[in-house]
Amino acid sequence: MANSIYRASILQSYSQLLFQPCLSNKHCVPKKTNLLCFASSQLNPARSEVSFCIGTHLIPHPNKVERGGEDAFFVSNFKGGVIAVADGVSGWAEQNVDPSLFSKEIMANASSLVGNLEVNYDPQILIRKAHAATCSKGSATAIVAMLERNGTMKVASVGDCGLRVIRKGQIIFSTTPQEHYFDCPYQLSSELVGQTYLDAVVSSVELVEGDTIVMGSDGLFDNVFDGEIVSTLAAHSDVVEAGIG
Amino acid sequence: MANSIYRASILQSYSQLLFQPCLSNKHCVPKKTNLLCFASSQLNPARSEVSFCIGTHLIPHPNKVERGGEDAFFVSNFKGGVIAVADGVSGWAEQNVDPSLFSKEIMANASSLVGNLEVNYDPQILIRKAHAATCSKGSATAIVAMLERNGTMKVASVGDCGLRVIRKGQIIFSTTPQEHYFDCPYQLSSELVGQTYLDAVVSSVELVEGDTIVMGSDGLFDNVFDGEIVSTLAAHSDVVEAGIG
Repeated sequence: MANSIYRASILQSYSQLLFQPCLSNKHCVPKKTNLLCFASSQLNPARSEVSFCIGTHLIPHPNKVERGGEDAFFVSNFKGGVIAVADGVSGWAEQNVDPSLFSKEIMANASSLVGNLEVNYDPQILIRKAHAATCSKGSATAIVAMLERNGTMKVASVGDCGLRVIRKGQIIFSTTPQEHYFDCPYQLSSELVGQTYLDAVVSSVELVEGDTIVMGSDGLFDNVFDGEIVSTLAAHSDVVEAGIG
Repeated sequence: MANSIYRASILQSYSQLLFQPCLSNKHCVPKKTNLLCFASSQLNPARSEVSFCIGTHLIPHPNKVERGGEDAFFVSNFKGGVIAVADGVSGWAEQNVDPSLFSKEIMANASSLVGNLEVNYDPQILIRKAHAATCSKGSATAIVAMLERNGTMKVASVGDCGLRVIRKGQIIFSTTPQEHYFDCPYQLSSELVGQTYLDAVVSSVELVEGDTIVMGSDGLFDNVFDGEIVSTLAAHSDVVEAGIG
Protein backbone atom coordinates (compact mmCIF):
# COMPACT_ATOMS: atom_id res chain seq x y z
CA MET A 1 0.00 0.00 0.00
CA ALA A 2 2.59 2.47 1.06
CA ASN A 3 4.67 1.83 -2.02
CA SER A 4 2.43 3.95 -4.13
CA ILE A 5 3.75 6.95 -2.24
CA TYR A 6 7.08 6.49 -3.89
CA ARG A 7 6.61 7.88 -7.32
CA ALA A 8 9.41 10.19 -6.50
CA SER A 9 11.65 11.91 -8.95
CA ILE A 10 15.35 12.26 -8.43
CA LEU A 11 17.01 13.77 -11.44
CA GLN A 12 20.42 12.48 -12.35
CA SER A 13 21.54 15.72 -13.89
CA TYR A 14 23.53 18.12 -11.80
CA SER A 15 21.88 20.89 -9.86
CA GLN A 16 18.44 20.49 -11.39
CA LEU A 17 15.27 20.66 -9.41
CA LEU A 18 12.02 18.89 -10.10
CA PHE A 19 8.74 19.93 -8.53
CA GLN A 20 6.08 17.30 -8.89
CA PRO A 21 3.26 17.79 -6.42
CA CYS A 22 0.97 14.79 -6.50
CA LEU A 23 -2.46 15.28 -5.09
CA SER A 24 -3.74 11.85 -6.04
CA ASN A 25 -4.01 9.31 -3.30
CA LYS A 26 -6.18 6.69 -4.94
CA HIS A 27 -3.71 3.90 -4.30
CA CYS A 28 -2.93 4.54 -0.68
CA VAL A 29 -4.72 5.54 2.48
CA PRO A 30 -2.16 7.26 4.64
CA LYS A 31 -2.98 7.95 8.28
CA LYS A 32 -2.56 11.61 7.47
CA THR A 33 -0.81 13.78 4.98
CA ASN A 34 2.40 12.34 3.64
CA LEU A 35 4.85 14.89 2.48
CA LEU A 36 7.94 13.51 0.96
CA CYS A 37 11.03 15.21 -0.39
CA PHE A 38 13.71 13.19 -2.05
CA ALA A 39 17.10 14.73 -2.52
CA SER A 40 20.12 13.07 -4.04
CA SER A 41 23.55 14.58 -3.60
CA GLN A 42 25.89 14.58 -6.54
CA LEU A 43 29.53 15.36 -6.93
CA ASN A 44 30.73 17.89 -9.43
CA PRO A 45 34.09 16.38 -10.44
CA ALA A 46 35.52 19.66 -11.64
CA ARG A 47 35.04 21.42 -8.33
CA SER A 48 34.56 18.50 -5.92
CA GLU A 49 31.37 20.13 -4.80
CA VAL A 50 27.99 18.62 -4.13
CA SER A 51 24.45 19.77 -4.61
CA PHE A 52 20.98 18.32 -4.32
CA CYS A 53 18.88 16.89 -7.10
CA ILE A 54 15.37 17.16 -5.73
CA GLY A 55 11.98 15.59 -6.33
CA THR A 56 8.87 16.09 -4.23
CA HIS A 57 5.48 14.53 -3.60
CA LEU A 58 2.60 15.85 -1.56
CA ILE A 59 -0.15 13.37 -0.75
CA PRO A 60 -2.81 14.84 1.51
CA HIS A 61 -4.86 12.80 3.92
CA PRO A 62 -8.03 11.62 2.13
CA ASN A 63 -10.15 13.84 4.34
CA LYS A 64 -8.03 16.89 3.51
CA VAL A 65 -7.64 16.56 -0.23
CA GLU A 66 -9.99 19.42 -1.05
CA ARG A 67 -7.86 21.96 0.81
CA GLY A 68 -4.64 20.41 -0.48
CA GLY A 69 -3.63 19.06 2.90
CA GLU A 70 -1.95 20.75 5.83
CA ASP A 71 1.66 20.19 4.85
CA ALA A 72 3.81 22.66 2.96
CA PHE A 73 7.35 22.61 1.68
CA PHE A 74 9.90 24.52 -0.28
CA VAL A 75 13.05 23.60 -2.12
CA SER A 76 15.79 25.89 -3.34
CA ASN A 77 18.98 25.54 -5.33
CA PHE A 78 20.68 28.24 -3.28
CA LYS A 79 24.25 27.10 -2.58
CA GLY A 80 24.19 23.28 -2.36
CA GLY A 81 20.42 23.26 -2.04
CA VAL A 82 17.77 23.72 0.61
CA ILE A 83 14.81 21.45 1.40
CA ALA A 84 12.17 22.12 4.03
CA VAL A 85 8.86 20.73 5.22
CA ALA A 86 6.24 22.13 7.60
CA ASP A 87 3.18 20.28 8.89
CA GLY A 88 0.22 22.32 10.09
CA VAL A 89 -1.17 21.09 13.40
CA SER A 90 -4.63 19.62 12.76
CA GLY A 91 -6.08 20.63 16.10
CA TRP A 92 -6.60 24.20 14.90
CA ALA A 93 -9.50 23.04 12.73
CA GLU A 94 -11.53 22.65 15.94
CA GLN A 95 -11.20 26.41 16.39
CA ASN A 96 -12.24 27.03 12.79
CA VAL A 97 -8.68 27.87 11.81
CA ASP A 98 -7.40 26.29 8.61
CA PRO A 99 -4.31 24.37 9.81
CA SER A 100 -2.66 24.73 6.41
CA LEU A 101 -2.38 28.52 6.55
CA PHE A 102 0.41 28.63 9.12
CA SER A 103 2.48 25.88 7.50
CA LYS A 104 2.12 27.41 4.04
CA GLU A 105 3.01 30.90 5.23
CA ILE A 106 6.05 29.84 7.24
CA MET A 107 7.39 27.90 4.26
CA ALA A 108 6.74 30.84 1.95
CA ASN A 109 8.59 33.09 4.37
CA ALA A 110 11.46 30.65 4.69
CA SER A 111 11.70 30.42 0.92
CA SER A 112 11.99 34.20 0.58
CA LEU A 113 14.54 34.40 3.41
CA VAL A 114 16.85 31.59 2.34
CA GLY A 115 19.45 33.95 0.88
CA ASN A 116 19.09 36.57 3.62
CA LEU A 117 22.44 37.73 4.94
CA GLU A 118 21.33 37.56 8.56
CA VAL A 119 20.23 33.97 8.05
CA ASN A 120 23.82 33.25 7.04
CA TYR A 121 22.80 29.87 5.60
CA ASP A 122 21.95 28.59 9.08
CA PRO A 123 18.75 26.50 9.21
CA GLN A 124 18.03 27.42 12.83
CA ILE A 125 18.20 31.13 12.04
CA LEU A 126 16.04 30.57 8.97
CA ILE A 127 13.40 28.99 11.22
CA ARG A 128 13.67 31.93 13.63
CA LYS A 129 13.18 34.58 10.96
CA ALA A 130 10.51 32.69 9.04
CA HIS A 131 8.57 32.10 12.25
CA ALA A 132 8.86 35.75 13.25
CA ALA A 133 7.55 36.82 9.85
CA THR A 134 4.51 34.52 9.95
CA CYS A 135 1.22 36.26 10.76
CA SER A 136 -1.30 33.41 10.28
CA LYS A 137 -3.01 31.92 13.29
CA GLY A 138 -2.02 28.33 13.87
CA SER A 139 1.06 26.24 14.44
CA ALA A 140 3.28 23.81 12.59
CA THR A 141 6.17 21.44 12.97
CA ALA A 142 9.06 22.24 10.65
CA ILE A 143 12.35 20.87 9.39
CA VAL A 144 14.96 22.61 7.24
CA ALA A 145 18.07 21.06 5.68
CA MET A 146 20.76 23.14 3.97
CA LEU A 147 23.56 21.59 1.96
CA GLU A 148 26.95 23.24 1.86
CA ARG A 149 28.89 22.74 -1.35
CA ASN A 150 31.54 20.85 0.65
CA GLY A 151 29.00 18.14 1.56
CA THR A 152 27.96 19.27 5.03
CA MET A 153 24.17 19.13 5.37
CA LYS A 154 22.93 21.22 8.29
CA VAL A 155 19.53 20.34 9.72
CA ALA A 156 17.24 22.15 12.15
CA SER A 157 13.96 20.58 13.24
CA VAL A 158 11.15 21.52 15.60
CA GLY A 159 8.68 18.69 16.13
CA ASP A 160 8.05 15.48 14.28
CA CYS A 161 8.90 16.13 10.66
CA GLY A 162 11.88 13.96 9.80
CA LEU A 163 14.79 13.18 7.55
CA ARG A 164 16.71 10.05 6.60
CA VAL A 165 20.01 9.76 4.75
CA ILE A 166 20.42 6.55 2.76
CA ARG A 167 23.91 5.47 1.68
CA LYS A 168 24.69 2.21 -0.11
CA GLY A 169 21.27 0.81 0.65
CA GLN A 170 21.13 1.60 4.35
CA ILE A 171 20.03 4.47 6.52
CA ILE A 172 23.08 6.13 8.01
CA PHE A 173 21.47 9.20 9.58
CA SER A 174 18.04 9.89 11.03
CA THR A 175 16.45 12.74 12.85
CA THR A 176 14.43 12.02 15.97
CA PRO A 177 10.99 13.55 16.59
CA GLN A 178 10.29 15.78 19.58
CA GLU A 179 6.91 15.67 21.26
CA HIS A 180 5.35 16.79 24.52
CA TYR A 181 3.29 13.60 24.63
CA PHE A 182 1.71 11.24 22.11
CA ASP A 183 0.44 13.09 19.04
CA CYS A 184 1.40 16.49 20.48
CA PRO A 185 4.65 17.46 18.79
CA TYR A 186 6.86 20.42 19.53
CA GLN A 187 5.53 23.15 17.25
CA LEU A 188 6.15 26.67 16.07
CA SER A 189 3.01 28.63 16.88
CA SER A 190 1.23 31.94 16.55
CA GLU A 191 0.71 31.67 20.31
CA LEU A 192 3.24 32.28 23.06
CA VAL A 193 2.80 28.77 24.44
CA GLY A 194 4.48 27.22 21.41
CA GLN A 195 8.12 26.43 20.81
CA THR A 196 10.69 28.60 19.10
CA TYR A 197 13.88 28.16 17.09
CA LEU A 198 15.64 27.75 20.44
CA ASP A 199 13.87 24.41 20.83
CA ALA A 200 15.11 23.14 17.48
CA VAL A 201 17.37 20.12 17.36
CA VAL A 202 20.32 21.28 15.29
CA SER A 203 22.53 18.65 13.71
CA SER A 204 24.61 18.07 10.63
CA VAL A 205 25.93 15.16 8.60
CA GLU A 206 28.69 14.88 6.04
CA LEU A 207 27.22 13.71 2.73
CA VAL A 208 28.99 12.00 -0.13
CA GLU A 209 28.08 11.62 -3.77
CA GLY A 210 25.13 9.32 -4.29
CA ASP A 211 23.56 9.73 -0.87
CA THR A 212 19.78 9.96 -0.94
CA ILE A 213 17.90 12.13 1.52
CA VAL A 214 14.25 11.48 2.31
CA MET A 215 12.50 14.28 4.18
CA GLY A 216 8.87 14.25 5.15
CA SER A 217 6.20 15.01 7.69
CA ASP A 218 5.23 12.49 10.36
CA GLY A 219 2.55 11.35 7.92
CA LEU A 220 5.32 9.59 6.04
CA PHE A 221 7.39 8.23 8.90
CA ASP A 222 4.38 7.14 10.96
CA ASN A 223 3.05 5.07 8.07
CA VAL A 224 6.15 3.71 6.38
CA PHE A 225 8.88 1.73 8.10
CA ASP A 226 12.46 2.77 7.46
CA GLY A 227 13.07 -0.60 5.81
CA GLU A 228 10.26 0.08 3.35
CA ILE A 229 11.77 3.44 2.48
CA VAL A 230 15.11 1.79 1.76
CA SER A 231 13.66 -1.10 -0.24
CA THR A 232 11.45 1.21 -2.26
CA LEU A 233 14.38 3.43 -3.13
CA ALA A 234 16.38 0.34 -4.09
CA ALA A 235 13.64 -0.67 -6.50
CA HIS A 236 13.91 2.66 -8.27
CA SER A 237 17.54 3.05 -9.18
CA ASP A 238 16.40 4.77 -12.37
CA VAL A 239 14.97 7.71 -10.55
CA VAL A 240 13.87 9.58 -13.62
CA GLU A 241 11.74 6.62 -14.58
CA ALA A 242 10.53 6.32 -11.01
CA GLY A 243 9.43 9.92 -11.10
CA ILE A 244 7.39 9.40 -14.23
CA GLY A 245 5.95 6.10 -13.01
CA MET B 1 17.07 -7.09 34.01
CA ALA B 2 18.76 -4.52 31.92
CA ASN B 3 18.39 -1.86 34.58
CA SER B 4 21.33 -3.18 36.49
CA ILE B 5 23.54 -1.90 33.71
CA TYR B 6 22.77 1.63 34.75
CA ARG B 7 24.95 2.21 37.73
CA ALA B 8 26.43 5.06 35.82
CA SER B 9 28.13 8.05 37.29
CA ILE B 10 27.66 11.54 36.01
CA LEU B 11 29.44 14.07 38.16
CA GLN B 12 27.70 17.36 38.70
CA SER B 13 30.90 19.28 39.12
CA TYR B 14 32.34 21.01 36.14
CA SER B 15 34.90 19.37 33.92
CA GLN B 16 35.53 16.40 36.14
CA LEU B 17 35.93 12.91 34.87
CA LEU B 18 35.02 9.68 36.59
CA PHE B 19 36.34 6.30 35.53
CA GLN B 20 34.42 3.46 37.05
CA PRO B 21 34.94 0.24 35.11
CA CYS B 22 32.54 -2.38 36.40
CA LEU B 23 33.40 -5.97 35.63
CA SER B 24 30.53 -7.45 37.61
CA ASN B 25 27.56 -8.76 35.73
CA LYS B 26 25.84 -10.80 38.36
CA HIS B 27 22.51 -9.05 37.92
CA CYS B 28 22.23 -9.07 34.17
CA VAL B 29 22.87 -11.40 31.28
CA PRO B 30 23.62 -9.21 28.32
CA LYS B 31 23.70 -10.76 24.87
CA LYS B 32 27.26 -9.60 24.65
CA THR B 33 29.48 -6.99 26.17
CA ASN B 34 27.76 -3.81 27.16
CA LEU B 35 29.96 -0.80 27.14
CA LEU B 36 28.34 2.35 28.29
CA CYS B 37 29.63 5.87 28.54
CA PHE B 38 27.48 8.57 30.07
CA ALA B 39 28.39 12.16 29.46
CA SER B 40 26.52 15.18 30.68
CA SER B 41 27.19 18.58 29.20
CA GLN B 42 27.37 21.53 31.54
CA LEU B 43 27.47 25.22 31.00
CA ASN B 44 30.18 27.35 32.48
CA PRO B 45 28.28 30.58 33.13
CA ALA B 46 31.37 32.73 33.16
CA ARG B 47 32.43 31.76 29.67
CA SER B 48 29.21 30.29 28.24
CA GLU B 49 31.17 27.19 27.41
CA VAL B 50 30.25 23.55 27.84
CA SER B 51 32.17 20.45 28.73
CA PHE B 52 31.42 16.83 29.51
CA CYS B 53 31.05 15.28 32.92
CA ILE B 54 31.71 11.63 32.26
CA GLY B 55 31.00 8.28 33.89
CA THR B 56 31.68 4.86 32.40
CA HIS B 57 30.74 1.23 32.87
CA LEU B 58 32.15 -1.84 31.21
CA ILE B 59 30.13 -5.03 31.61
CA PRO B 60 31.62 -7.91 29.64
CA HIS B 61 29.57 -10.75 28.27
CA PRO B 62 29.42 -13.52 30.89
CA ASN B 63 31.54 -15.78 28.69
CA LYS B 64 34.20 -13.11 28.30
CA VAL B 65 34.57 -11.86 31.85
CA GLU B 66 37.96 -13.50 32.42
CA ARG B 67 39.60 -11.54 29.61
CA GLY B 68 37.71 -8.37 30.55
CA GLY B 69 35.53 -8.41 27.47
CA GLU B 70 36.22 -7.25 23.94
CA ASP B 71 35.16 -3.64 24.28
CA ALA B 72 37.49 -0.76 25.02
CA PHE B 73 37.01 2.94 25.54
CA PHE B 74 38.73 6.14 26.41
CA VAL B 75 37.61 9.48 27.74
CA SER B 76 39.51 12.73 27.77
CA ASN B 77 38.93 16.23 29.11
CA PHE B 78 40.76 17.76 26.15
CA LYS B 79 38.81 20.84 25.04
CA GLY B 80 35.12 20.18 25.78
CA GLY B 81 35.80 16.48 26.24
CA VAL B 82 36.22 13.34 24.16
CA ILE B 83 34.46 9.99 24.57
CA ALA B 84 35.10 6.93 22.44
CA VAL B 85 34.19 3.25 22.33
CA ALA B 86 35.57 0.37 20.27
CA ASP B 87 34.14 -3.15 20.12
CA GLY B 88 36.44 -5.98 19.07
CA VAL B 89 34.85 -8.31 16.53
CA SER B 90 34.25 -11.67 18.19
CA GLY B 91 34.83 -13.74 15.07
CA TRP B 92 38.60 -13.42 15.44
CA ALA B 93 38.52 -15.84 18.37
CA GLU B 94 37.89 -18.62 15.84
CA GLN B 95 41.34 -17.85 14.43
CA ASN B 96 42.89 -17.88 17.91
CA VAL B 97 43.16 -14.10 17.89
CA ASP B 98 42.06 -12.34 21.08
CA PRO B 99 39.36 -9.94 19.77
CA SER B 100 40.07 -7.48 22.57
CA LEU B 101 43.62 -6.70 21.46
CA PHE B 102 42.63 -4.63 18.42
CA SER B 103 39.92 -2.65 20.22
CA LYS B 104 42.16 -1.93 23.19
CA GLU B 105 45.09 -0.85 21.02
CA ILE B 106 43.05 1.41 18.76
CA MET B 107 41.53 3.14 21.79
CA ALA B 108 44.97 3.51 23.39
CA ASN B 109 46.26 5.02 20.16
CA ALA B 110 43.27 7.33 19.89
CA SER B 111 43.79 8.44 23.46
CA SER B 112 47.42 9.36 22.80
CA LEU B 113 46.53 11.15 19.55
CA VAL B 114 43.60 13.20 20.79
CA GLY B 115 45.63 16.41 21.06
CA ASN B 116 47.64 15.78 17.89
CA LEU B 117 47.83 18.84 15.67
CA GLU B 118 47.14 16.87 12.50
CA VAL B 119 44.03 15.40 14.11
CA ASN B 120 42.83 18.99 14.51
CA TYR B 121 40.09 17.87 16.91
CA ASP B 122 38.33 16.01 14.08
CA PRO B 123 36.91 12.60 15.13
CA GLN B 124 37.20 11.16 11.62
CA ILE B 125 40.89 12.05 11.43
CA LEU B 126 41.42 10.66 14.91
CA ILE B 127 39.96 7.35 13.70
CA ARG B 128 42.23 7.45 10.64
CA LYS B 129 45.40 8.03 12.61
CA ALA B 130 44.53 5.66 15.47
CA HIS B 131 43.68 2.93 12.95
CA ALA B 132 46.93 3.50 11.04
CA ALA B 133 48.92 3.23 14.28
CA THR B 134 47.30 -0.04 15.35
CA CYS B 135 49.45 -3.13 14.84
CA SER B 136 47.34 -5.85 16.50
CA LYS B 137 45.62 -8.45 14.36
CA GLY B 138 41.86 -8.17 14.47
CA SER B 139 39.13 -5.65 13.83
CA ALA B 140 36.73 -3.44 15.73
CA THR B 141 33.81 -1.11 15.36
CA ALA B 142 34.47 2.34 16.77
CA ILE B 143 32.77 5.59 17.64
CA VAL B 144 34.35 8.87 18.72
CA ALA B 145 32.57 12.02 19.95
CA MET B 146 34.38 15.30 20.52
CA LEU B 147 32.74 18.27 22.22
CA GLU B 148 33.67 21.78 21.22
CA ARG B 149 33.46 24.34 24.00
CA ASN B 150 30.72 26.12 22.03
CA GLY B 151 28.44 23.06 22.34
CA THR B 152 29.00 21.37 18.99
CA MET B 153 29.56 17.65 19.47
CA LYS B 154 31.21 16.05 16.44
CA VAL B 155 30.75 12.32 15.99
CA ALA B 156 32.45 9.79 13.72
CA SER B 157 31.38 6.15 13.73
CA VAL B 158 32.36 3.02 11.83
CA GLY B 159 30.02 0.10 12.52
CA ASP B 160 27.45 -0.52 15.21
CA CYS B 161 28.64 1.28 18.29
CA GLY B 162 26.15 4.02 19.04
CA LEU B 163 25.28 7.24 20.77
CA ARG B 164 22.09 8.87 22.04
CA VAL B 165 21.54 12.43 23.19
CA ILE B 166 18.78 12.84 25.78
CA ARG B 167 17.26 16.28 26.35
CA LYS B 168 14.35 16.99 28.71
CA GLY B 169 13.55 13.33 29.01
CA GLN B 170 13.57 12.40 25.35
CA ILE B 171 16.09 11.24 22.81
CA ILE B 172 16.76 14.05 20.37
CA PHE B 173 19.72 12.57 18.46
CA SER B 174 20.77 9.02 17.62
CA THR B 175 23.45 7.48 15.51
CA THR B 176 22.52 4.67 13.14
CA PRO B 177 24.54 1.44 12.89
CA GLN B 178 26.22 0.37 9.65
CA GLU B 179 26.43 -3.29 8.78
CA HIS B 180 27.16 -5.42 5.72
CA TYR B 181 24.50 -7.90 6.83
CA PHE B 182 23.05 -9.15 10.10
CA ASP B 183 25.71 -9.33 12.82
CA CYS B 184 28.48 -8.25 10.42
CA PRO B 185 29.10 -4.58 11.13
CA TYR B 186 31.35 -2.20 9.26
CA GLN B 187 34.69 -2.52 11.01
CA LEU B 188 38.20 -1.11 11.14
CA SER B 189 40.52 -4.02 10.55
CA SER B 190 44.12 -5.16 10.40
CA GLU B 191 43.19 -6.64 7.02
CA LEU B 192 42.72 -4.79 3.74
CA VAL B 193 39.17 -6.07 3.37
CA GLY B 194 37.96 -3.95 6.28
CA GLN B 195 36.60 -0.43 6.31
CA THR B 196 38.51 2.78 6.89
CA TYR B 197 37.88 6.25 8.25
CA LEU B 198 36.44 7.06 4.82
CA ASP B 199 33.52 4.77 5.63
CA ALA B 200 32.72 6.59 8.86
CA VAL B 201 29.42 8.34 9.25
CA VAL B 202 30.36 11.85 10.33
CA SER B 203 27.72 13.97 12.01
CA SER B 204 27.37 16.62 14.66
CA VAL B 205 24.75 17.96 17.01
CA GLU B 206 24.45 21.19 18.96
CA LEU B 207 24.29 20.41 22.68
CA VAL B 208 22.89 22.55 25.45
CA GLU B 209 23.47 22.53 29.18
CA GLY B 210 21.96 19.49 30.83
CA ASP B 211 21.95 17.20 27.81
CA THR B 212 22.95 13.64 28.59
CA ILE B 213 24.90 11.55 26.11
CA VAL B 214 24.84 7.77 26.25
CA MET B 215 27.48 6.05 24.16
CA GLY B 216 27.98 2.32 23.97
CA SER B 217 28.72 -0.73 21.92
CA ASP B 218 25.95 -2.68 20.21
CA GLY B 219 25.89 -4.83 23.32
CA LEU B 220 24.05 -1.98 24.98
CA PHE B 221 21.73 -0.89 22.20
CA ASP B 222 20.86 -4.43 21.11
CA ASN B 223 19.74 -5.31 24.62
CA VAL B 224 18.17 -2.14 25.94
CA PHE B 225 15.37 -0.23 24.23
CA ASP B 226 15.79 3.50 23.87
CA GLY B 227 12.78 3.99 26.13
CA GLU B 228 14.48 2.00 28.85
CA ILE B 229 17.57 4.15 28.56
CA VAL B 230 15.48 7.29 28.96
CA SER B 231 13.42 5.96 31.87
CA THR B 232 16.49 4.66 33.66
CA LEU B 233 18.20 8.01 33.35
CA ALA B 234 15.06 9.72 34.63
CA ALA B 235 15.14 7.52 37.72
CA HIS B 236 18.67 8.67 38.52
CA SER B 237 18.56 12.44 38.59
CA ASP B 238 21.11 12.28 41.39
CA VAL B 239 23.80 10.91 39.16
CA VAL B 240 26.50 10.76 41.82
CA GLU B 241 24.25 8.51 43.85
CA ALA B 242 23.41 6.52 40.74
CA GLY B 243 27.08 5.96 40.14
CA ILE B 244 27.62 4.58 43.60
CA GLY B 245 24.45 2.50 43.57
